[in-house]
Amino acid sequence: MLRKKDYVALTPPMGWNSWDCYAATVNEEQLLGNAKYMEKYLKQHGWEYVVCDIQWSEPMAGTGVSEYRNFAHLTLDEFSRQIPAENRFPSSKNGVGFKAIADQIHDMGLKFGIHIMRGIPRQAVHARTKIKGTSVTADQIALFGSISRWNGDMYGVDYTKPGAQEYYNSLFELYAEWGVDYVKVDDICNTNMYPHDPYSAEKEIEMIRHAIDNSGRQMALSLSPGPAVIEKAWHMEQNANLWRITDDFWDKWELLKAMFERCEVWQKHVTPGCWPDCDMLPLGKIGMGFHQGRWTNFTKDEQRTMMTLWSIFRSPLMMGGEMRDNDEWTLSLLTNDEVLRLLKHSFDATQLKRDDNEAVWVSEDEDGARYIALFNLSDKQLTVEADLSELELKTVSVRDLWEHKDLGKAEGTVSALLPAHGSVLYRLEK
Amino acid sequence: MLRKKDYVALTPPMGWNSWDCYAATVNEEQLLGNAKYMEKYLKQHGWEYVVCDIQWSEPMAGTGVSEYRNFAHLTLDEFSRQIPAENRFPSSKNGVGFKAIADQIHDMGLKFGIHIMRGIPRQAVHARTKIKGTSVTADQIALFGSISRWNGDMYGVDYTKPGAQEYYNSLFELYAEWGVDYVKVDDICNTNMYPHDPYSAEKEIEMIRHAIDNSGRQMALSLSPGPAVIEKAWHMEQNANLWRITDDFWDKWELLKAMFERCEVWQKHVTPGCWPDCDMLPLGKIGMGFHQGRWTNFTKDEQRTMMTLWSIFRSPLMMGGEMRDNDEWTLSLLTNDEVLRLLKHSFDATQLKRDDNEAVWVSEDEDGARYIALFNLSDKQLTVEADLSELELKTVSVRDLWEHKDLGKAEGTVSALLPAHGSVLYRLEK
Amino acid sequence: MLRKKDYVALTPPMGWNSWDCYAATVNEEQLLGNAKYMEKYLKQHGWEYVVCDIQWSEPMAGTGVSEYRNFAHLTLDEFSRQIPAENRFPSSKNGVGFKAIADQIHDMGLKFGIHIMRGIPRQAVHARTKIKGTSVTADQIALFGSISRWNGDMYGVDYTKPGAQEYYNSLFELYAEWGVDYVKVDDICNTNMYPHDPYSAEKEIEMIRHAIDNSGRQMALSLSPGPAVIEKAWHMEQNANLWRITDDFWDKWELLKAMFERCEVWQKHVTPGCWPDCDMLPLGKIGMGFHQGRWTNFTKDEQRTMMTLWSIFRSPLMMGGEMRDNDEWTLSLLTNDEVLRLLKHSFDATQLKRDDNEAVWVSEDEDGARYIALFNLSDKQLTVEADLSELELKTVSVRDLWEHKDLGKAEGTVSALLPAHGSVLYRLEK
Amino acid sequence: MLRKKDYVALTPPMGWNSWDCYAATVNEEQLLGNAKYMEKYLKQHGWEYVVCDIQWSEPMAGTGVSEYRNFAHLTLDEFSRQIPAENRFPSSKNGVGFKAIADQIHDMGLKFGIHIMRGIPRQAVHARTKIKGTSVTADQIALFGSISRWNGDMYGVDYTKPGAQEYYNSLFELYAEWGVDYVKVDDICNTNMYPHDPYSAEKEIEMIRHAIDNSGRQMALSLSPGPAVIEKAWHMEQNANLWRITDDFWDKWELLKAMFERCEVWQKHVTPGCWPDCDMLPLGKIGMGFHQGRWTNFTKDEQRTMMTLWSIFRSPLMMGGEMRDNDEWTLSLLTNDEVLRLLKHSFDATQLKRDDNEAVWVSEDEDGARYIALFNLSDKQLTVEADLSELELKTVSVRDLWEHKDLGKAEGTVSALLPAHGSVLYRLEK
Repeated sequence: MLRKKDYVALTPPMGWNSWDCYAATVNEEQLLGNAKYMEKYLKQHGWEYVVCDIQWSEPMAGTGVSEYRNFAHLTLDEFSRQIPAENRFPSSKNGVGFKAIADQIHDMGLKFGIHIMRGIPRQAVHARTKIKGTSVTADQIALFGSISRWNGDMYGVDYTKPGAQEYYNSLFELYAEWGVDYVKVDDICNTNMYPHDPYSAEKEIEMIRHAIDNSGRQMALSLSPGPAVIEKAWHMEQNANLWRITDDFWDKWELLKAMFERCEVWQKHVTPGCWPDCDMLPLGKIGMGFHQGRWTNFTKDEQRTMMTLWSIFRSPLMMGGEMRDNDEWTLSLLTNDEVLRLLKHSFDATQLKRDDNEAVWVSEDEDGARYIALFNLSDKQLTVEADLSELELKTVSVRDLWEHKDLGKAEGTVSALLPAHGSVLYRLEK
Repeated sequence: MLRKKDYVALTPPMGWNSWDCYAATVNEEQLLGNAKYMEKYLKQHGWEYVVCDIQWSEPMAGTGVSEYRNFAHLTLDEFSRQIPAENRFPSSKNGVGFKAIADQIHDMGLKFGIHIMRGIPRQAVHARTKIKGTSVTADQIALFGSISRWNGDMYGVDYTKPGAQEYYNSLFELYAEWGVDYVKVDDICNTNMYPHDPYSAEKEIEMIRHAIDNSGRQMALSLSPGPAVIEKAWHMEQNANLWRITDDFWDKWELLKAMFERCEVWQKHVTPGCWPDCDMLPLGKIGMGFHQGRWTNFTKDEQRTMMTLWSIFRSPLMMGGEMRDNDEWTLSLLTNDEVLRLLKHSFDATQLKRDDNEAVWVSEDEDGARYIALFNLSDKQLTVEADLSELELKTVSVRDLWEHKDLGKAEGTVSALLPAHGSVLYRLEK
Repeated sequence: MLRKKDYVALTPPMGWNSWDCYAATVNEEQLLGNAKYMEKYLKQHGWEYVVCDIQWSEPMAGTGVSEYRNFAHLTLDEFSRQIPAENRFPSSKNGVGFKAIADQIHDMGLKFGIHIMRGIPRQAVHARTKIKGTSVTADQIALFGSISRWNGDMYGVDYTKPGAQEYYNSLFELYAEWGVDYVKVDDICNTNMYPHDPYSAEKEIEMIRHAIDNSGRQMALSLSPGPAVIEKAWHMEQNANLWRITDDFWDKWELLKAMFERCEVWQKHVTPGCWPDCDMLPLGKIGMGFHQGRWTNFTKDEQRTMMTLWSIFRSPLMMGGEMRDNDEWTLSLLTNDEVLRLLKHSFDATQLKRDDNEAVWVSEDEDGARYIALFNLSDKQLTVEADLSELELKTVSVRDLWEHKDLGKAEGTVSALLPAHGSVLYRLEK
Repeated sequence: MLRKKDYVALTPPMGWNSWDCYAATVNEEQLLGNAKYMEKYLKQHGWEYVVCDIQWSEPMAGTGVSEYRNFAHLTLDEFSRQIPAENRFPSSKNGVGFKAIADQIHDMGLKFGIHIMRGIPRQAVHARTKIKGTSVTADQIALFGSISRWNGDMYGVDYTKPGAQEYYNSLFELYAEWGVDYVKVDDICNTNMYPHDPYSAEKEIEMIRHAIDNSGRQMALSLSPGPAVIEKAWHMEQNANLWRITDDFWDKWELLKAMFERCEVWQKHVTPGCWPDCDMLPLGKIGMGFHQGRWTNFTKDEQRTMMTLWSIFRSPLMMGGEMRDNDEWTLSLLTNDEVLRLLKHSFDATQLKRDDNEAVWVSEDEDGARYIALFNLSDKQLTVEADLSELELKTVSVRDLWEHKDLGKAEGTVSALLPAHGSVLYRLEK
């Protein structure tokens, strides 16, 4: 059964997000440069979203020691709404906002996404700025104690107050005018940082859902950061299209290994319009926004393992690296159509087994084929094997999707000798 | 994808369990009496299991102030295994065990189930009784600190010890000889009674799975008590057929209302062979085993609400009352084939909405029809309504399944004026 | 061993605090009116402090539905410091601040105290106001996430930042200029509202200690709210003179009964300069600041029980009611010199026994006498008894301090038949 | 104020305990051998207790891989009471029990102590052994779920059951007959291993207190393991003489460093008859009972630091090493009368400061002198200094107690250049 909000994301969104490479500092040139790269190299493989991550309204973002400057001056309009910092996004001047950038991205046949923080700017609250279409001011809808532990820009919004829904409506009206296709809302997915903290962002999620529906424009709704709480899965399925099932993911093996557990927990919740999200792909050139530009720390085996898990699980795929710096290997990971086919055409991914050393996942294709991914989670070479009888299969022909090679018939079992942290992804046909 | 262990329960088990009426005191006459009732009145409606609940090896069970007598003398065989108390189950004498009862129940075309506690009798441990087919004694496989807080009969079994798997194998070999079709294992589903308690029964669940597979007989595996932990859903799906998603359920409205939240959480995990379990139905005459025989406290509206939720969610259905005391109303709840059809032929039950006052669930039938259940969770009369567009429907013909009545066409919405705690279950056809 | 900071409070502070009667709304007339009452009726019995509680810098305080108005406009000076709201404290105009009020109170032979919240006004932070004697602005020393859950006026101060200590120094310099003798710092004593919340106000307590020492004026330091954490007792003893061992105390028996447990825990920590604080005495006319002026809900027996416990435990005594409305009974509770003597001259108070029905406390006088308090904690009349041998006594003469009556000799035991929630306080001499 | 139970331990107990060297395996020869050593070398310095630690009733103790053998056969008498294993304590034969050993130790002018576990042997429970002087059997007073996580020998005793107090009385009658002077009760001091575990051993502590009082013999009562919960300090002060404020202490610097925090918390609770206990001294030759005999891992500096902290804090001192293997250095630590004087004659030990690098403690002597201990907690050489004005002193003469050296006058401050983990203990006179 599909909900109305599901149609905007019937398959997992695929795109690029500025965070892993540019953190809080991304600018117009970087955004459009990556869009053009996507148009040229990735679009034909199914990639479409270009997403501008956090702090785009702050002129000085990234000039401090950490990502966020305390009590930074944000660029706001008269209605308490953040607008792009002109020094970083020159085309946004004169009230244009993100419209000019969105138009260019649309002209490339791509889609445009932005990041926002839950809530209303503290700056607007203490300046008692107006809320559009109301007689209310920002301080009248803000919750003084509902506060992010990692970014001091915003207060939460108190849904019981007149003007609260109107505030969120005014945001998404603006985003609709700009032509935004995708909104990543932050500090909203897992807000229970401390046990017994009574605060919940549930009502803010619902206000945002209503604001999108009210805006008249289809926008995919992505919730961060995770880990999302599985007990609240239904609420997220009702309201959002993607939600992070992990805290920020980076290029460390222990985080990649931990994702298998996260996927185990969420596997039954992967359905059209509802995408548990393993977070961005820290591939290629990353970290420039953290004063520490580097090539991904993942080995090639680990990179394939990540792509394999994200693909068979059907996580959203958001490339995190500066794509214009991609080498051939990195590009090859993003353009393997046999692998990417799983995003669009596979279903019912299921973990067959998992322990500290290995994992096996299987799924099905709409055309009747089966997929199997064998993972070596240990730090040594290992043969990973799966019993075909568990798939109700006996003899199958096996194709290695990463290598584009037919491996012939397998009977009874499929197996592979895998390097440490390595994997294979096979397509099985009777 | 079906696992081998799923085939024994492709639809949710339906049957009778002795706990709600006889607690720890059930005997042969009561067991067979209810089996005969089932054969005569319920079998043709899909009911098949007759399950003997806890303490069947204790001759004096039920003679104390609480259900369990501390350090009770259990009847054990030479291999540390509990066998039926002869005074309560006369046909079990001379090593017959439950075989004679199982045979009679099979002859009625029904199936036979038993309850066991996780672990090995403390009595056997302190007497250092043998484990069958090994040179090991009970004390050598017992975990002295893995202990139930509510029943002192058993120690947990330490899977790292030689003889541990053999002990469980010896149990299920015996049950296979007896002809047991269903085993409810207790003190195993949610063992983390206290935060940070490192004990987990996961390994014991796995040993039991292996023991069933090793026994050569198909037996449905039911895990208790709940609430099961949703993060461990995959592990349960790998190993069991039913698991309790709630602590003991009784005839109190607050428990019934709370079940809607439990079903919300588990709705994606209801699949052939894997049945999140809302617990027994405390209908008709119950409580005799607690020195407090009574008619169910549920109103008729609440009884229908319970049956409606259990049916559309596809919980296992285990009648808890003494069936020979059923009145016409109670029997009618258990024999409405239009409702019970959902257990066998519906799928993809989804909660459409829920708040403190109302809930709406929908599902589909294999024949293309849709189901919708409207629930009034408030304490006042209320009209509950659902928007058909959320089901991608416009005009439907509506049939009331409890009342066996066609209600004509509905356009745009379906709704019902419901008494406090009341509900309707409709079949919708285009 | 006495610390330097102990000398300002060698015996438990006794005074009046505006909170219980006027909450956030107290004004100059009320403050001085109660001071005059104290001068006339209480001073000769040892009472000396007149304390102005929270929100004195907010002109509109108390005009909202709850005590605190979100994002209220506070009256600040050019250095981010709160100064009294002129409409409520007319003598504070033209930069006089609280000096004129303090002077008048000093002229009465009394002492003057004020309340402050931990931290720096958010208003100053978002206006980027200066910190006195530095080139730093308020936003540069504020901790955006260290935030009270119950009052949104302040951010915590980050002790690692240049200007942080200078800010607190500038506050206490101002208070010294005003002639403040006592500072009650709020939102600082127990800041770990949620388990695992890493925030601790320890460093802010230390900055305030340094600021007082730096100010050149002796001021008693009181920390709120409680319950203080007993594991941190040493830190409080190092830095403060009073600290609340309870959350806000009001005129409800269950709160009074619970105080016995709090006193049990803290009894070893009552020493000169270090006073675990049972909170204000909600006696007489209270609640006007909460739109609900009322006479105390405590019965006379409960009032004596409270006074007896506070006195033998040697809690600070802060009258909470509007004293000008005192009746004779209330005044008599505050002027019984035989009872109040314990505040100044008793020591080593020890709980002799406590259960759900009764409690017994004993202590010693500098003159060699002993005290014993017998409490009936039950809801029925009860005889409470104590064994004199536990005090290494045999025969004693007994004086009832509340009734000013000699009761003659007691041998072996002392006892009293007490009404529900009642108590006696006896002086014992050999 | 002294309680009756305080007189048995007016100063902190000093002695030897078998655990650190012999764990569960100690025997008669080792016990008496160490007693003779104490008589000869330590008695004149105030040492008096010889304590036999855990598992003395188990013939095979120490033959397993870990200290405790699961479901071991204990030697019990007809009344469910453990008696010494004859193979390990030959003089205990023929019902003599520990009397012969106690007599010999008494003849040396020393005192004898034993260890027991809280509760009643599971072995007695499952054999339904009698309770002395009652018609009750062991299973009738046992709590099946009140169970140690680290030793499976015992069930807790349910104080609500007839026979419970009589059981404990029968134990301590036996110990009185044997001539026991000191009982270390284990698994009783901190039993809340998991948050929200409702079990508390409070009632068992009270039953033991009553049983000692009832026995007619003075016995010091020591409670283990820790960390004791400071909120329950009063209850322990009412009932016991020593209680462990730490989990098991061993020869690792991080444990020694952590003890400073424990002492900080408990410093106000050190009074005659009531001794917060820092645990045994792992000095000299230890670990033989763990299959790993070794010389203490503590450096000499660390050993002095430990002795200094224990002495100024006035922890009980229980030597843990095999004393017959003492070298001269180790013996010197145990026989420095100037240091040991603090155990008997100092009072009011107070922590003056503590951070991650240093700690300073001070106390007073009955003769008017002051003590100061300076500790270097860092891993580098460091000068630690204290301001004499904080002691209300100006000029003092300083004596180094470990070195027996007068250091001359100090004015304003005392200080010492200390090696990593090192310390000094000074006596100060005006």
